[in-house]
Amino acid sequence: MNDLKHYLREVEDIFANEQFIAEPHELYEPIDYTLRLGGKRIRPTLLLAANALFGGTPSLVRGAALGIETFHNFTLLHDDLMDRSPLRRGQPTVYTKWGDNAAILSGDTMFALAWRYFLRQPTPRLQEILQCFNETAIEVCEGQQKDMNFETMALESVSITEYMEMIRQKTAVLLAGALKIGALYAGAPEKEVEKLYAFGIHLGLAFQLQDDLLDGYGDSAVFGKKTGQDIRDNKKSYLPLLALTVSSQGQQKELSQLFSSKDNMDEEEKVCRVMEIYNTIGLREKVERSIADEFALAKKSLDDIHADETLKTPFRELMDTLNGRKK
Amino acid sequence: MNDLKHYLREVEDIFANEQFIAEPHELYEPIDYTLRLGGKRIRPTLLLAANALFGGTPSLVRGAALGIETFHNFTLLHDDLMDRSPLRRGQPTVYTKWGDNAAILSGDTMFALAWRYFLRQPTPRLQEILQCFNETAIEVCEGQQKDMNFETMALESVSITEYMEMIRQKTAVLLAGALKIGALYAGAPEKEVEKLYAFGIHLGLAFQLQDDLLDGYGDSAVFGKKTGQDIRDNKKSYLPLLALTVSSQGQQKELSQLFSSKDNMDEEEKVCRVMEIYNTIGLREKVERSIADEFALAKKSLDDIHADETLKTPFRELMDTLNGRKK
Repeated sequence: MNDLKHYLREVEDIFANEQFIAEPHELYEPIDYTLRLGGKRIRPTLLLAANALFGGTPSLVRGAALGIETFHNFTLLHDDLMDRSPLRRGQPTVYTKWGDNAAILSGDTMFALAWRYFLRQPTPRLQEILQCFNETAIEVCEGQQKDMNFETMALESVSITEYMEMIRQKTAVLLAGALKIGALYAGAPEKEVEKLYAFGIHLGLAFQLQDDLLDGYGDSAVFGKKTGQDIRDNKKSYLPLLALTVSSQGQQKELSQLFSSKDNMDEEEKVCRVMEIYNTIGLREKVERSIADEFALAKKSLDDIHADETLKTPFRELMDTLNGRKK
Repeated sequence: MNDLKHYLREVEDIFANEQFIAEPHELYEPIDYTLRLGGKRIRPTLLLAANALFGGTPSLVRGAALGIETFHNFTLLHDDLMDRSPLRRGQPTVYTKWGDNAAILSGDTMFALAWRYFLRQPTPRLQEILQCFNETAIEVCEGQQKDMNFETMALESVSITEYMEMIRQKTAVLLAGALKIGALYAGAPEKEVEKLYAFGIHLGLAFQLQDDLLDGYGDSAVFGKKTGQDIRDNKKSYLPLLALTVSSQGQQKELSQLFSSKDNMDEEEKVCRVMEIYNTIGLREKVERSIADEFALAKKSLDDIHADETLKTPFRELMDTLNGRKK
């Protein structure tokens, strides 16, 4: 029986056997650096497991697995530049190491490389698979734009619905797309592909809501980041947006003010005050309920798929791992 | 008989019938702006003419024509940001109008939109066509990187061979790729496709060498730009690189110094001195010879193609137009 680790090892093998350095080296060094930095490799792992779920041939989806991870890393590279994030996976980001122009052009090239990997192996459903990949890519860009739009908006003008749609596009569709592509390569029936896609969407939403929760309630030693950073950054995450819908008029007004404060306020005092409101209204439990709801929907979609139960094991493992994650 | 104008009108019709505005509008407004700015539309026009040359169906390559021009405009958008060019076609560039992040993300989205247009219409040779498009895209990125590398290199350390390879990748392959894609859609035989590709490469090289020549010897009133800008920018264009290979040791030394000068020299004095050396060694005629050589090679490739001579008319028209161009 193949567990999650089996597919992860296969992904590592695919990357170990690929050469990313080429000429001009100023272009390919940042690409090699980015793709060798590691990360959870969750998208290609899901793609391989989805392919196996419907009886696909592992050797025929190695290019697609490489392509989906290369695309994901391209989006991180450009996002880090746009967000001016100095670190990624504990290492300096490309724009800090090589400059803005290298980050732009090496990123563009990574997007093209993702296509090269996808186009490497023929498949009877090429057009459908590439359309799935590309429409996913466009949604990821749209999600990133919405996320940037929220930065300059007032807390009370972002709705929960808009926020959920943003994280669906920015995070969930690529997980779901990876699963769908793996299933399409295996020739899975449309109905089963849809259920697997829905599983990916709910898993992605649960994952992002957890991320938002951990920022407020994580153990910073385990989480690896200082908690409360979203509050310091006035980030319109799920926490303040949900808080607005369940708090008193006075609390709503105070939250709106706190999330529009500039440098004129003591940061730690601000974090404390926001957390006080969160605790008063029992926000943690409410967010945990939302996360549990998404996990339940993911589980339901997975249960409904007509496939060999033992081949669903890696997906159940992943859900269990994510469900208990502290970082 | 269909002339060049006929295909250009078809391209304009394709763009007029396409909707580029979508949500979020912060993402799609810069895209619509860029794609509506116009330009010569030479690549999609060539794609349509190449398709007709081998008896293709015009309605089946509308997506590809849109895709190749969208990709071209994506590269211009990101190049303008990297080069910090304030104007494009006489209008403010995207990064000056909407900021760096909009330029990055709208550009990324345009690359994905190019794929959407290519994937819109099925074709039996999909994998081959998309590989041609994608390998072309990668070469364009590599050419842009080499161009950026030359900026920080000394004049004497860039060879003519390296320069020709850079402009081949940055400019010529996309013209040649557009022709090849048009021919592939029509099911043209491999040998004929190769000849048409070679035609495109030589045409692209001739075009770029002309651009370099016009910077030194164009009529600024007709050219639309102040002449000598490449000299002011220490740009390692074909002119100084060729000059180095045909001048005396003393002139070589002076040229190297002039092309590494910073702000410590009067700009117009510098332009005058460089032009004096160019004139002394008869550089203009030598560059005109190189351009004529490329046009001759292009013409030879076109002549050799086995196809209806009347269908070659638009390509001959284009050569004649470019050959006599003053801007």
